[in-house]
Amino acid sequence: MTHKVIILGASGYTGAELVRLISSHPEMSIQALSGDRKAGHEMSEVFPHLRHLDLPKLQRISDIDISSADLVFCALPHATSQAVISTIPDTVKVVDLSADFRISDTSVYKKWYGKEHDAPDLQKIAVYGLTEFYRSEVAAARIVACTGCNAAAGQFALRPLIAAGVINLDQIIIDLKTGVSGAGRSPKENILHAELSEGTHAYSVGGQHRHLAEFDQEFSKLAGRLVQVQFTPHLIPANRGILATVYVQGDADEIYKILEKTYKNESFVHVLPMGEHPSTRHIRGSNYCHIGVVNDRVSGRTIVIAALDNLTKGSSGQALQNANLMLGCPETSGLLMAPIFP
Amino acid sequence: MTHKVIILGASGYTGAELVRLISSHPEMSIQALSGDRKAGHEMSEVFPHLRHLDLPKLQRISDIDISSADLVFCALPHATSQAVISTIPDTVKVVDLSADFRISDTSVYKKWYGKEHDAPDLQKIAVYGLTEFYRSEVAAARIVACTGCNAAAGQFALRPLIAAGVINLDQIIIDLKTGVSGAGRSPKENILHAELSEGTHAYSVGGQHRHLAEFDQEFSKLAGRLVQVQFTPHLIPANRGILATVYVQGDADEIYKILEKTYKNESFVHVLPMGEHPSTRHIRGSNYCHIGVVNDRVSGRTIVIAALDNLTKGSSGQALQNANLMLGCPETSGLLMAPIFP
Amino acid sequence: MTHKVIILGASGYTGAELVRLISSHPEMSIQALSGDRKAGHEMSEVFPHLRHLDLPKLQRISDIDISSADLVFCALPHATSQAVISTIPDTVKVVDLSADFRISDTSVYKKWYGKEHDAPDLQKIAVYGLTEFYRSEVAAARIVACTGCNAAAGQFALRPLIAAGVINLDQIIIDLKTGVSGAGRSPKENILHAELSEGTHAYSVGGQHRHLAEFDQEFSKLAGRLVQVQFTPHLIPANRGILATVYVQGDADEIYKILEKTYKNESFVHVLPMGEHPSTRHIRGSNYCHIGVVNDRVSGRTIVIAALDNLTKGSSGQALQNANLMLGCPETSGLLMAPIFP
Amino acid sequence: MTHKVIILGASGYTGAELVRLISSHPEMSIQALSGDRKAGHEMSEVFPHLRHLDLPKLQRISDIDISSADLVFCALPHATSQAVISTIPDTVKVVDLSADFRISDTSVYKKWYGKEHDAPDLQKIAVYGLTEFYRSEVAAARIVACTGCNAAAGQFALRPLIAAGVINLDQIIIDLKTGVSGAGRSPKENILHAELSEGTHAYSVGGQHRHLAEFDQEFSKLAGRLVQVQFTPHLIPANRGILATVYVQGDADEIYKILEKTYKNESFVHVLPMGEHPSTRHIRGSNYCHIGVVNDRVSGRTIVIAALDNLTKGSSGQALQNANLMLGCPETSGLLMAPIFP
Repeated sequence: MTHKVIILGASGYTGAELVRLISSHPEMSIQALSGDRKAGHEMSEVFPHLRHLDLPKLQRISDIDISSADLVFCALPHATSQAVISTIPDTVKVVDLSADFRISDTSVYKKWYGKEHDAPDLQKIAVYGLTEFYRSEVAAARIVACTGCNAAAGQFALRPLIAAGVINLDQIIIDLKTGVSGAGRSPKENILHAELSEGTHAYSVGGQHRHLAEFDQEFSKLAGRLVQVQFTPHLIPANRGILATVYVQGDADEIYKILEKTYKNESFVHVLPMGEHPSTRHIRGSNYCHIGVVNDRVSGRTIVIAALDNLTKGSSGQALQNANLMLGCPETSGLLMAPIFP
Repeated sequence: MTHKVIILGASGYTGAELVRLISSHPEMSIQALSGDRKAGHEMSEVFPHLRHLDLPKLQRISDIDISSADLVFCALPHATSQAVISTIPDTVKVVDLSADFRISDTSVYKKWYGKEHDAPDLQKIAVYGLTEFYRSEVAAARIVACTGCNAAAGQFALRPLIAAGVINLDQIIIDLKTGVSGAGRSPKENILHAELSEGTHAYSVGGQHRHLAEFDQEFSKLAGRLVQVQFTPHLIPANRGILATVYVQGDADEIYKILEKTYKNESFVHVLPMGEHPSTRHIRGSNYCHIGVVNDRVSGRTIVIAALDNLTKGSSGQALQNANLMLGCPETSGLLMAPIFP
Repeated sequence: MTHKVIILGASGYTGAELVRLISSHPEMSIQALSGDRKAGHEMSEVFPHLRHLDLPKLQRISDIDISSADLVFCALPHATSQAVISTIPDTVKVVDLSADFRISDTSVYKKWYGKEHDAPDLQKIAVYGLTEFYRSEVAAARIVACTGCNAAAGQFALRPLIAAGVINLDQIIIDLKTGVSGAGRSPKENILHAELSEGTHAYSVGGQHRHLAEFDQEFSKLAGRLVQVQFTPHLIPANRGILATVYVQGDADEIYKILEKTYKNESFVHVLPMGEHPSTRHIRGSNYCHIGVVNDRVSGRTIVIAALDNLTKGSSGQALQNANLMLGCPETSGLLMAPIFP
Repeated sequence: MTHKVIILGASGYTGAELVRLISSHPEMSIQALSGDRKAGHEMSEVFPHLRHLDLPKLQRISDIDISSADLVFCALPHATSQAVISTIPDTVKVVDLSADFRISDTSVYKKWYGKEHDAPDLQKIAVYGLTEFYRSEVAAARIVACTGCNAAAGQFALRPLIAAGVINLDQIIIDLKTGVSGAGRSPKENILHAELSEGTHAYSVGGQHRHLAEFDQEFSKLAGRLVQVQFTPHLIPANRGILATVYVQGDADEIYKILEKTYKNESFVHVLPMGEHPSTRHIRGSNYCHIGVVNDRVSGRTIVIAALDNLTKGSSGQALQNANLMLGCPETSGLLMAPIFP
């Protein structure tokens, strides 16, 4: 059976990545692609790497008959997303890649995103899309809110540890290094090649990054108390990949056992042998997440390092994984390609 | 039906790329992997990006029962390859990725490679593996010699033009830019990150590059006379990708028509609309080759630009494409993945 | 004696590079810096790498008293430059880094730049700023028009050969590879890190690049007849550096001798030993230009390769070299820093 | 007055960087250069970016008359350094860039470096070369041991805070990102371009990096008690630059004031305005160190970020700064060049 899907926002990197992944999915067919500023153009003009595919032209959202689709991937900018999704018929499932439905509390949403939510009713029913931890809810959901890419990396490292109560909840630091594709394709001075290559810097330092809203929500829910992590992202001169170096206080062996047990049957999340740790180069272009655990020389300190590709496991791959569950396809369909190295 | 294959030289980049591609092939199974210096190691230790796959350990070649395989991919260094292949039973098909069987003339081989060939009998029967131009020969071959990666790029641009007689055979220049993975994984000072990033330089300047032996052989055969092109490769700070900028003297429209006609039914070689030209970024990780044709302001001059990924269409993808034909699989099996961008 | 200089357009890369160079010049002091969109800001906010310097704030051009300066560096966008320069008092010397005064013929200017020139009188008196070839004219000039960065690289390789009549004037090809800083700091999709890193592509293919106007003008003047070269620039993932691979028809030894003789007393242009050729990595951040000559295997063909840094010898370094002559300083003042490698 | 200096180990990156810096030093002249494996070669063959300089050929150490020099820069590998330095006449001053004399305690040295020290007498008299904190000792020293590059970055951020007692000594984490030139020029698989570009990974995780010996020694001495920091370095795809993100527990304003006060008269160490933080791109190729302080949203937590160039301020620049003091030159001679950006 072929499921009809539509991708809104196909002129951005996550939209193009969805097309790449779906192109090898045996049970999905792309009915329409939107890209308001590029409406009327062939996808091959906007993303020449997809020119071998037979794809519909980019259209304005208003020109697309969304009701004919089984599922819509919404890869639109934050805020735009909630406006568009609130007009989609109830019969159509929605996987949203924006931040709009990640935060369930209206006031928390407003605090981090600086505006009232336009679709608070949908916000209530949206399911948080970290597939491995919300599998049954995702399968039953009408709207799934994919996680922030950094938020995914941090949670893969930390959720099992917080749930198991084996680390000090007041001493968690996530020092994260991310590639630049997460910043999108809209031209800005700070993401030019000449500004970024051959160096690194931190950004949103001091607890200003919006993905903290997700960490706070999810970790506090798991712990049954307020958990506030420190989170400092850094931009590195790479297009894809997130490496989250997580500093925790707890026993390394215990931590390792819990992570290994949590993920041992997972297709996409792999815990490396004790003492080994991952590189973003080894998951590039794939839906895999590699996690390593290392005991520090300082007694009682453990370092957990998680690596994933921000455009696949961090967004579009995660989105497809969720869509698979929502449509009754095998969870791994279209997602088992090996990473590309070098 | 599942075909049993063996990869010799699996600890190098082309060997690992074969594993990546075959991992999504529906009719091939990897029986053994060799890697003499890494014998005894898991593939996941040598190439962590393949850790999600269930693969045999690396072995010494001498410990592998080659006779049980249907086909052997030989990704060994030049010279080693001919010695090993001459010991493989006749009943096993061979796809060689080295330079050892590309040149059919014994003395030409010696001139470019500086030694006598150790298996001149096999040299005679080996088929040159540029699939699109040797399809029937490859399908019937016992030994196929995959082309040099640069040689592939130049030939996709030039073969149809030489065959059609529409360009001046004495005024052909191939200015080529290549990523560094073609230089292999053996540590050398000149391929260190600190030596290569953020700059470019030419190498083998003046007609010293061994892939010229292939250009000479193939172009002269097509033209029925000696054809000697100028060929200057440059190393650019990228891991994958070859861009061949080919300067020819001939009518751009005529050139375009011939290229378009030649490749219009090809799965992997795509001619862009007249006046457009390719980027290596848009074929990365894929088996596609993009070709563009541009008319120069200088009357009678045309620029043909071809882009392909040296590790896929330039070597391991080409090897698998040939193996598919030799084993009776669909030519595109395991090779239709989209390029990865950005 | 200290010469008072002003830099107009100090918020762009060439403006910042001027500041970097002048900061170690013993006889120049920066009186004012303009940057219309950044007026009121400290230079350290716009270019934090210059924060150790004591610099004037960025101002609007209209707020600067230009008449007090000895010399103005004009690093403004094309077209803006001619409008501004036409208002500068005659008593102030001008070094223009834009394309506005490079082309002396009004109709040729219009053909390549698509508009009438607004200051045709100044266009007539402006001196073309390739210092090594216009030394006395530059020293006496009121307005010097610095060359295009690509135009500089091609001319260092070719001028002596055309002047000496040792190459076929109808068979010249410049295949050029350039870093991205030449494209400026204004955000555009095609110069984002995610679009450029890890690959290469050609641009302005077929004779469309505006620096051809300079090649045509200068080479034709030298030859006493129309000379039209083929010129294909490529963008490589590096911030600085131009490598011009020049294909000519002529005797390699003769070519080598002429280049060596031409440049043997030059401080900044160095001819490598016969058969060696340069890398952009070895001139980065410096005012040096390295030139190599290699004999091709095809009889009568020679390859000349020139490397320079587009922001120094290709623009701001060249500008300072010219300013030194105009102000009576030693030509090399502020310009003898070694390249930075790796 | 011109001081005669010799550079031992001039065929490595730190040796070449010393030559680059000294080339603009008004009072130093290079008498000899050693490079055992490259003995007999011109420096321009080994480092073509220095070809504009008039330099002595590379020699074997045994062929150099060291006694004629005023000062020797020793940029040899660890362990080799101590053997060579113990043969240098007492009348010659030594600036060592290796790790051999950084650790004053014999047993601590053995623990981290796995061998007995061959010159324990010299180990006792060697001065730790973090210039800003050992100025008078360096000026009077015969042997100065330059710090590890990572050790320098971490100490610039932390020394004033530990000395002032304003942070929790048991909760210090240094998450460091470093470019690859610190790994040297000897070919190894893990520093190939194809292995490193477009990604990141941690190394020496868990407290295994030898620069921890320096942190332990220096921080414990300052605090008057054992201080053990957590230190996790990461390799990023850049050639130069270290960014140390330091997590401390203490009041941000107090921390800021102490850093600002400590460095306000320093030529090379600059504290950015409160809340701002540095990028490695803005100190590249220079001797500057930029430090930023940011208050975290988690109460009582502060992030201090330090950026420096590992080859200049982290090694060769620091070495020259120390040599200036030892020879009675102005401390900043040859070191005031601006960073190169982009």
